This record gives sequence, structure tokens and C-alpha cells, in this order.
Amino acid sequence: MGSNMARNLIEKGRELVVYDVNEKATEQAVNSKKAIRVNSPKEVAEQCDGPVFTMLPNNQIVLDVYSDPQKGLIAGAKKGNYLVDCSTVSPETSKTLHERSTAAGVNFHDAPVAGAEPAAITGTLTFMVGGEKSSVKNIEPFLNDMGKKIFNTGAIGTGSVAKICNNMLLAICMLGTSEAILMGERLGVDPKMLTEIINVSSGRNWSSEIYNPVPGIVSTAPSARNYSGGFLVKYLTKDLGLAQGTAHAGQTSTPLGSTAHQLYQIMNRSGYSDKDFSIIYKFIKGEKP
Amino acid sequence: MGSNMARNLIEKGRELVVYDVNEKATEQAVNSKKAIRVNSPKEVAEQCDGPVFTMLPNNQIVLDVYSDPQKGLIAGAKKGNYLVDCSTVSPETSKTLHERSTAAGVNFHDAPVAGAEPAAITGTLTFMVGGEKSSVKNIEPFLNDMGKKIFNTGAIGTGSVAKICNNMLLAICMLGTSEAILMGERLGVDPKMLTEIINVSSGRNWSSEIYNPVPGIVSTAPSARNYSGGFLVKYLTKDLGLAQGTAHAGQTSTPLGSTAHQLYQIMNRSGYSDKDFSIIYKFIKGEKP
Amino acid sequence: MGSNMARNLIEKGRELVVYDVNEKATEQAVNSKKAIRVNSPKEVAEQCDGPVFTMLPNNQIVLDVYSDPQKGLIAGAKKGNYLVDCSTVSPETSKTLHERSTAAGVNFHDAPVAGAEPAAITGTLTFMVGGEKSSVKNIEPFLNDMGKKIFNTGAIGTGSVAKICNNMLLAICMLGTSEAILMGERLGVDPKMLTEIINVSSGRNWSSEIYNPVPGIVSTAPSARNYSGGFLVKYLTKDLGLAQGTAHAGQTSTPLGSTAHQLYQIMNRSGYSDKDFSIIYKFIKGEKP
Amino acid sequence: MGSNMARNLIEKGRELVVYDVNEKATEQAVNSKKAIRVNSPKEVAEQCDGPVFTMLPNNQIVLDVYSDPQKGLIAGAKKGNYLVDCSTVSPETSKTLHERSTAAGVNFHDAPVAGAEPAAITGTLTFMVGGEKSSVKNIEPFLNDMGKKIFNTGAIGTGSVAKICNNMLLAICMLGTSEAILMGERLGVDPKMLTEIINVSSGRNWSSEIYNPVPGIVSTAPSARNYSGGFLVKYLTKDLGLAQGTAHAGQTSTPLGSTAHQLYQIMNRSGYSDKDFSIIYKFIKGEKP
Repeated sequence: MGSNMARNLIEKGRELVVYDVNEKATEQAVNSKKAIRVNSPKEVAEQCDGPVFTMLPNNQIVLDVYSDPQKGLIAGAKKGNYLVDCSTVSPETSKTLHERSTAAGVNFHDAPVAGAEPAAITGTLTFMVGGEKSSVKNIEPFLNDMGKKIFNTGAIGTGSVAKICNNMLLAICMLGTSEAILMGERLGVDPKMLTEIINVSSGRNWSSEIYNPVPGIVSTAPSARNYSGGFLVKYLTKDLGLAQGTAHAGQTSTPLGSTAHQLYQIMNRSGYSDKDFSIIYKFIKGEKP
Repeated sequence: MGSNMARNLIEKGRELVVYDVNEKATEQAVNSKKAIRVNSPKEVAEQCDGPVFTMLPNNQIVLDVYSDPQKGLIAGAKKGNYLVDCSTVSPETSKTLHERSTAAGVNFHDAPVAGAEPAAITGTLTFMVGGEKSSVKNIEPFLNDMGKKIFNTGAIGTGSVAKICNNMLLAICMLGTSEAILMGERLGVDPKMLTEIINVSSGRNWSSEIYNPVPGIVSTAPSARNYSGGFLVKYLTKDLGLAQGTAHAGQTSTPLGSTAHQLYQIMNRSGYSDKDFSIIYKFIKGEKP
Repeated sequence: MGSNMARNLIEKGRELVVYDVNEKATEQAVNSKKAIRVNSPKEVAEQCDGPVFTMLPNNQIVLDVYSDPQKGLIAGAKKGNYLVDCSTVSPETSKTLHERSTAAGVNFHDAPVAGAEPAAITGTLTFMVGGEKSSVKNIEPFLNDMGKKIFNTGAIGTGSVAKICNNMLLAICMLGTSEAILMGERLGVDPKMLTEIINVSSGRNWSSEIYNPVPGIVSTAPSARNYSGGFLVKYLTKDLGLAQGTAHAGQTSTPLGSTAHQLYQIMNRSGYSDKDFSIIYKFIKGEKP
Repeated sequence: MGSNMARNLIEKGRELVVYDVNEKATEQAVNSKKAIRVNSPKEVAEQCDGPVFTMLPNNQIVLDVYSDPQKGLIAGAKKGNYLVDCSTVSPETSKTLHERSTAAGVNFHDAPVAGAEPAAITGTLTFMVGGEKSSVKNIEPFLNDMGKKIFNTGAIGTGSVAKICNNMLLAICMLGTSEAILMGERLGVDPKMLTEIINVSSGRNWSSEIYNPVPGIVSTAPSARNYSGGFLVKYLTKDLGLAQGTAHAGQTSTPLGSTAHQLYQIMNRSGYSDKDFSIIYKFIKGEKP
């Protein structure tokens, strides 16, 4: 994700300071001569006058990258500059980062993205940004370089809330689509035709149309390449855990979201963790990963 | 549904013989001078050379309308004619009707529809038709008068299977959408903006786009008129029961479909039965019907 | 089950006519000189003046054994005699058997058992008997030879209903116990101590006390012998299917019963089918069968 | 709970210092002349040489009672004394209290109880105590005055873990028992007889035996008095929330525990919150609280 976002910024004429624990991830940017690589998040922040963007795998890593006293972003950020986290994390994490940034005289926004890798590549991400409108304004030109749509969702943390809501619904639709097609398939309806029917009917959804879990129906979907790549079970399992924390924070009953979470947790420990999440179709079918 | 389908047939130049227990339902057709009303299903079948279509509320009523020895369709049907059931019933019911029809020298097809009332009105229904291709051919001209798309799904009963698969997925997507939006709403994200985000993201589905359960987001959805009209909780509860029977017939695990069924069953007994099924948003919110 | 029931009848002084597709199952009875083996269910019924008991694996087999025109029980039964089915079947199956028996001038009762193999061995089964009290009286002496408690549950079929209710609850308690102990174990509580705590607390149940799913806690439980023997996943999965049919017949919402069913269905197709049902502890833990 | 625990300590010859926001709760103790009432938790701690016990409703209140700088227990506790929390809270809360106590030179143990009010009254509580064995030894004489069984469950926080495991299982067994009995009842089996059957079968559990949810079966259960008193829906809902947090901390899949949680959350917002938790029988039946 991050390297694609960097490329889009560069293509729009920006000059970058970059860092990644995996050096290869920064190679393309550095080779373009429009980015310099430094040795820590702190150095990124020290050398940037414009906003600093982060795209990281989970709560703990995000907290470390921002708050490490020796190497963290906040330690290096210039007063009044902007730190913008595009990771999918809990709203509490976003609020914590905001508090710590504010205490250091730095602005912070949670700005997770929709659209996944394809949208990152084409620079058509959707950003859900938490925080004051007047402050968001200042980072919008940069977001527009990487995306096509910006939603200012409300207070700090609401960007993360919105992202988590979408991903929970994604898991539900994927599992529901898998159940429905498998049910028909077992009683003699061709999965491809059943998909066509669903896609012109009231059951249609992104998973049935774009990311169908049954191999051979959508040629670009991970199911067509043995569920490799895509959005891995381990990451969706993490997001569903965030969703349950978020539901609990608002005392919201999520019967399907929690059932999906329980099943993905079992899958995640049963050998499916590094496969695309649409493999849940195989799991309920009783097939090995 | 039935009266709209009749109107479309008449508008395409057909002449009809009609019957409904509720006399008002046949009024429009009769007034058009292109339909005559008779006094039983049997009489309909006796007076028709072309196919007879039925659209009825549940398994038992369909079985009665076809098989009643005094007043039923099969008793009156001409040898070689076609009986076509557009109701949403169990695949077993479709197979039973087929056996009984065949025994009487009459053809039978299950041909449930997608698109609901709006598509019935505009003559743009989708038909899922079970049975031999060569036989389906003979009723296609009539189906085309009422719809825009015909899927020949396979053996007798597979039309019903396909319909039930779609409706189970519909219930899952509706409940999932309700959970996701309520979860965001409770933590400060505006439901309308959250819907917009979902609708450009991977959680998008027919329920979020066309039939949103939160009042004030989609002006034509039942949620905008206090959940009146639409697809009633009692009918979806019935369909989810059919889905569980269908899942069981193929020994298919449907974790979300069954959870949705259990919740709709509680709702159906708690005062929500005559409201549109999108009212599940209010149910999980703890609001009275 | 059946051979143990036969042995208890013989030990109480009864003389038997026996049949089983597996000849070995009748060996012990035949060797005792108190039972003669015949070649079909029909011959059993033809040669018995007293009640005929059946203990069989599923609906279809029971229907065949009773109704086969050439070899079935009903074809051979003497007018006024009693046919008693101790299998776990659907209430509808029990009602069908009753109708067919009655039509042939024969009495029928559903009389499934609680207590499983240990109670069959020791002759301490519990019988749940559907049908008229005055009729049940006539088979009670025989039931008392095999069991210690008889419940006359109401109309024909209610014996089956009661059995299915218990088995659904059993599955729920077993899965619940597995979840609770695993949850504690993962956070550092010894499963054996946690079991002791539960067993003196409000969570205690038959599965936690007698049939604990965690190896090493109850030495006589199948979990102590790698989940071999006991009550196999495939049979409980079947019973949970019966339970969902029964719930649907009464339009009863069973959120936990249906969730347990969905999980056992996945297990049943994923290599666990011939293991004791307490292996669900390993399934949710992500361990192979 | 607290006043009964105090009474038992007094009956065993202890002299107490007591505090409760509700003055009436301390009346009995004060009237016995063996307890003096003070004006804050801090004053309790200041005046006690022996261990201080707390029994409070939720995480936040416990944190406040211990940590308030002006009125909290830790601020008043003598170095080396013992603070013992008997509330049902999250393991994280227990660990936080332990850290803060340790920092102030004070010992801390989590020691939640099983047995509920009846056991508190008769002094037969079960304690689940987290923390070092050598330290637990020092509070055992006091625990023995109020209970009959002490489990030292492991590290700090494991007492809370064990309690939460039991309560999750309790909710599952109660809902499962309600489903099973309602299912039988709807098909003609008397709930009282069905309960008797379950209680001699493999479905038996504390809820079916001692705390049956169907009115008229167990005369001492809350169901016999319109679900008043007992263990309120709002408190079990809270505990089920703690359970989900605990499950997530260990990445444990709890399909039934989470489903029970979702349903109790709906009930808690639908007018059932101040009724005994066994009222879930009425909720799934579709009856108003």
C-alpha cells in the first residue's frame, strides 16, 4: 500500500522523505530521485515540513512508530506539522495518537482508506478522515494526490470507526455470499449462474460481483488463483477483532459481525491465515486450505 | 404481484382467465375487458389453452391450489398444458407439484421471480425457471411479457433453490448493513455519510444502496415511511425457514443465514411481523416496532 | 445399544427373536440360548406375540425397516401387537410410523432413550414414550427390564421431541464448556482447576462434570482416549439437524442450537465425523482431528 | 452481597470498618456494634490493619474506589496491608489495580466469588484468587470466614478470568435451556416433565436444575416471581462484554458466548434490563418483559 501511495505523490510532483523496516519497499521511490530514505520514523518527521503519512499493520506497531522516544515520529515532528495515520486501527489508538501529538504541539488525523491495493495503485483511494474540518483542509491536497474521495467523518477516531464498520460488513457479505452460493451449488444450481442471478437481484453485493469466493467466476478475484494474495485472513481477523471492540464501546449488538469473527478466528488458527479472506467459502465447505 | 403480472400480459396483447380469493385483486384485469374472472383455480385451468401462472404466499396454499380434487388446478388442466408456479416455496414443494402434474399428463415448472413489486409493475422481473430446457422454451414468450431476464437453473426445483439462496443472502446483507451503520452511528459517524462511504467501498450491497434500513437515507425505501409496505417481516421469516430446510437438504453450513433466521423469528413474534424487513435495524437498536 | 438392551431383557427372563444387518450384533443373544435369530424385520414381527423394539441410526432406515412391503415389520406384525421405536428420529417420522402401524391394526410408540451406552449396559435407561397412557401401560414391563425411568411425554411423536430437545441442549452445553475452558486456559488458568471451579458454580453441567472435553480431566471421558468411541460427531450432527427441523415445526427461535448445528456441520465435513462430539474443543482451538 | 459478607465476618468474631455509598447497606453491620462506618474508601484503608475487601458493580467504579487521589483505598492503605477485590471485573482492571497497589507498597489480589447471594448469605462462597500463593495465604483466614472453598487460580487477574469464564458458560446454559424447553413446549411436551427428563439426561445443567427459566418449575427461582430480583440482565450483559474482551485477549473463538452476548445486548435495551437474566426465555418466546 505505502509504496503505491508514495509513487502517486511523486507522480503529482511531490518530493518525499521515506522510511520502511523493509528496505525494498522504499526502493522504487528512492530510485525515482524524488525521495530520500532515512533511518527511522523520527528522521522522517525531522526532515518534513509537510504532512507525514503512515500505513502500518496493527495498533501496537502504530503506537510504537509514533511514540518511541528515540525513534518515533512524535519525537521528531516539527511544531504545527501534521501526522496522518492511514492504517486500520482501533478508534482508541487514533485518540491516543491524537492526544500524544497534541501534547507535543503537533496535529494528528486518522485517515484510513477504502479501495485496497487496486485503488492505491491507481491513486483512487477513498479517505475517511477524523478531526476538525479546518485542520483536515490542510492535508486535503496531499490526500487528493493519492485518492479521489475524502470523507471528513467527524471527531478524531471516527475515520477509524468508519473503516472498521465497512470491513465488518465486508466480512458478513463475503460469508453470506459463500453460504448462499454453496447452498445452491449443493442442490444442483451452477455457481456461475447463481452468481448472475444474485447480481441482478436483491442479494447482490461487492463480494458477489467483484470478489466472488467461488473459483472460476471472477477471473481477477483471488479465488481464481487459489486464494493467494488479496486481503489475508489474518488481517481481516484482526479487523473483526477491532470491530467487536468498537461494537462493545457503543454497546451495539452485532449478531452477524460477531459470528463472522468467531469463524475467522477458527480459520486463522487452522491453516488459512495467509490466504485471501474469500477462502471462507472453502472452510464452510469442509475443504482444506 | 399477481395483478401487476396480469396487467403486463394484457398490455402485451394476451387474453386472460383470472382467479384470486381476494376479488379486488382481479378487478383491474377484468375491467380491462381482456380478462374474465372464474370461480376456482380449476376453472382457470379448464378454460386456458396456454400456460397458467400462480403467485401465492406459502407452501401449503400452493399445494392446495394445485391439488384440491374439487377446485384445484391439476384437476382442471388440459393434457399437455403448462402450470407455472412463480411463488417462493420449498424445492420439495416444487418437486411434489411436478410429480402430481406429470401424473395427470400436465407440464409443470417452478419459476420464482426476483425484483419484487417494482419489477412486477414495470414488467422487468427476473425468472428462475426449473425444468427441461425444451419445455421451458414453450413458456418463455409469456415470461418475456412480464420480465426481462430468464434463467433456466436446472432440474425441477432449482428455480426455488435459487430464489431461496438470494433471499437468505438478502436477509444477511440487510442485518449486516444495519449492524455496521448502527455501530458507526453510536460512535459519532453520521449514518448518511457512513452509507456513502460503504457504497463506494467493499461493504456495498443492495440493502445499503437501494433499501437502506436507516430512515432518511433512501427516500424511496420503506424505512422512509416508518417501515410500512415493502417485504414484510413475516414473509422473510418464512423464506428464511425455507432456506434452513434447503441448507439442511444439502447439509450446507450457513452460520449467518441461520443466525438471521433466529432473529427474524423473535421479531416475528414481538410485534414487527407486518413491517418491512429492514426494521431489523430498529430491533437490534432496542426500539419498539 | 441394541445388543445391550437385548441382554438386559434376557437377564430378566425374556425370550427374544432378534435381527440385525450386522450378524455379530446378535451373537451374544443367540449364544445365550434365549434368543433366536431370523432373517428380516418381518420375520421378527411374525414370530413375536409381545412387543417388538427397534434401535436404528436414522429416519430413512427406520422408515424402511418398518414399511418395506417384503421385509418390513408392519408387514409381519400380528394385529394388536406393539411396535416400539427407540431410535432418535424426527417427530414426523414417529407420526408416520404410527399412522402406517394403525392402518395395519398394530400399535406403535416412539420411545427414545436417555443415558447412552453406559445406561444401556447397566439397564438404567430413561425412556421418553409418546402415545396414549393406557397403551403405554402395556409395554412398561418390558421398558422396566431395560431402564429405570419412564416418561409418558404426551401424544405420539413427543418422545422424539423430548429426546431431540435434550440432545440439542447437550451440544450447546458441550460447546459452551469448550469455549469457557479454552478461554481461561489461554489466559493462564489450569483447565483442571477451572473445571473444578465451574463444577461448584453456576456454569456446571453434565459436559463439564461427566464428559469434559479437555483431555486429562475426566479419565472415563472420550477426551481421555483421543476422542475415540462415545457419541460420534456424525450422529450428533444428524440430531442437530433433527432439532432444527423440530424448532422450525414450532417456529421456535434457537440461536445457540442453530449455531452449534452450523459448526458441527463444518466439523462433520472436515475430518472429525468419526470422533466423539466433545472434540469440538479441538476444533475451536484450531487443532486437527 | 457486601453486607452479607460483612455479617459473616462479624459472626466469626471479626471487627470491621465499613463504607458504602448507600448508607443503608452498612446499617446491619453498624447496628451489631462490631463495625464502624467511615466516610470514604480511603478512611477504611487508613483504619484497617487487616485486609480490605471490596465488592463493586463494574470496572470504572472499582478503578475509582481504589485510585481516587482524595478518597481512594490506595491513598489510605498502610504499607504491606492487603487490598482484595471481590467484584467481577476485567483481568486488565485487576492487573491495573495490582500495579497501582504495588507502586504504593500495598498487596493486591483479585478474588471474585461464585455462589451469588445465597452463598453470600450462608457464608459458603467460592473464591477464585489471583496472585502468589505465599501472599494468598495471608488472606485465607478471612476468605474462609465468608466462604467454603478457595481456588488460587494463578497470576494476578486469573481470578477474574475464571469468574468471567463461569459466567459466560452460565449465560450459554441458560439460553440453551430456554431454547430446548421452549422447543419441546411448542410441540406439546409439558415443560415441567421436559425439565425432569433433561435433569436425568445429558442436557442437565445448573440452569435447568436450580434456576429454571420457565415459571412454575422451580419455586425458588426468579422465574417463579416474575423474574424479579436475582441476577439482573444488565449485570450479565456487562459480564458477557467482559467475556468478549477476555476471549479477544487470548484470541479465543467463542461462537455461543458471543451469540449470547448479542442477544442480551438487545434485551438490555428493550426493557428487560432490570429483570433476572432467566427472562431470556420470554424474550425468545416473543413476550414482553
